[in-house]
Amino acid sequence: MAKPRQARLTPQEVSELPELDDESGTLWDDRLGPVARGLLTSAVRCFASNGFHGTTTRDIASVVGLSPAALYVYFPSKELVLYEVIKTGHIRALESISSADLQSIADPTEHLRAMVSRYTEFHATHHVIARVCQYDLAALTSQHYDEILQLRHETNNVFRAVVARGVETGDFADVDVKRVARAMLSLGIDLVRWYRREGVETPEQIGQFNAEMALKMVAK
Amino acid sequence: MAKPRQARLTPQEVSELPELDDESGTLWDDRLGPVARGLLTSAVRCFASNGFHGTTTRDIASVVGLSPAALYVYFPSKELVLYEVIKTGHIRALESISSADLQSIADPTEHLRAMVSRYTEFHATHHVIARVCQYDLAALTSQHYDEILQLRHETNNVFRAVVARGVETGDFADVDVKRVARAMLSLGIDLVRWYRREGVETPEQIGQFNAEMALKMVAK
Repeated sequence: MAKPRQARLTPQEVSELPELDDESGTLWDDRLGPVARGLLTSAVRCFASNGFHGTTTRDIASVVGLSPAALYVYFPSKELVLYEVIKTGHIRALESISSADLQSIADPTEHLRAMVSRYTEFHATHHVIARVCQYDLAALTSQHYDEILQLRHETNNVFRAVVARGVETGDFADVDVKRVARAMLSLGIDLVRWYRREGVETPEQIGQFNAEMALKMVAK
Repeated sequence: MAKPRQARLTPQEVSELPELDDESGTLWDDRLGPVARGLLTSAVRCFASNGFHGTTTRDIASVVGLSPAALYVYFPSKELVLYEVIKTGHIRALESISSADLQSIADPTEHLRAMVSRYTEFHATHHVIARVCQYDLAALTSQHYDEILQLRHETNNVFRAVVARGVETGDFADVDVKRVARAMLSLGIDLVRWYRREGVETPEQIGQFNAEMALKMVAK
């Protein structure tokens, strides 16, 4: 649960909030230099705390000791910062469930179990960027929004394909594939609302639990 | 999915967004007069569009043709508007699952089915206020936040009690009551992220589907 507060947080406060402690800062594209990556990590925390419209480029820059003018060298607008954050979050989430080792699991039950575990663990381990990916989506330009929507469709399709395969092989019950896949995604995504690193459950434990729930959803 | 946009929306745009079409405006306390209720309905749409920090009291007031000064007659601060919105949303959600007709259902399976349906339907029918209840919670003062946390605990407890009773009677499997109840809440709450009235599924259809998923989670 986020720390209660009424006023907008200062950049200094944002950088010290324990509930914003996660691994989002490890996800950035390797082609970006350390300053750009530091700006993105700062931006994730600012957006998660105050929202896109409640965050200024000055806030983002000041956490890493830069001026707003210096930020514009790397990102010509605040929306481009948000776009890079949301694009990266969605690409990494999609990568977490479409890696070769997962795709090579022959048994539909074990494939579903591994996929739901990985997707859940991704959202717990990177819950701050994952929250921005959900809550600030509407602040993107139409063009960027459409790009992200494409990544979301691809993610949905990975879930649907795994459920559909198990239905076809007869390992799963004859379920409504689209709606069951959506329910599985809901379990993974909803944790960004309440997960905090200082809680009692590890990402792996929540992943295993969600995988069990997913298997029950398709049980014959 | 919210309409993509980059700039903050004007109050006029906010009042016309089709994705903000829901029944939130029917939930307000009867003791409030029509102007106060109109302000709260306007506030829900403004917060859902631009976030608490991206909304001004001028925005809220102008949708109903008032000045910020007139708003302060009813609500002495923007935070008090948010508090009234979030408190009402949580109370009504709790009422939806704790009414006498629900509590009198003797069969644990039918009780769980009805509860999950009602909770889901509430979130679909009032998805705009429900979104504000989740996304803007951290903008409350500590005291107001603690009050809302109490309502959330009560809601959790209603879900846990229904699951626990079915486990005790042997109608349900011997599940981890807290985590299973949390997963059922996730299915209901997560729809505020994607539900729109113009979609193909009615609140009742989503309610029935989530109830089926909940029953699978406790199936022996």
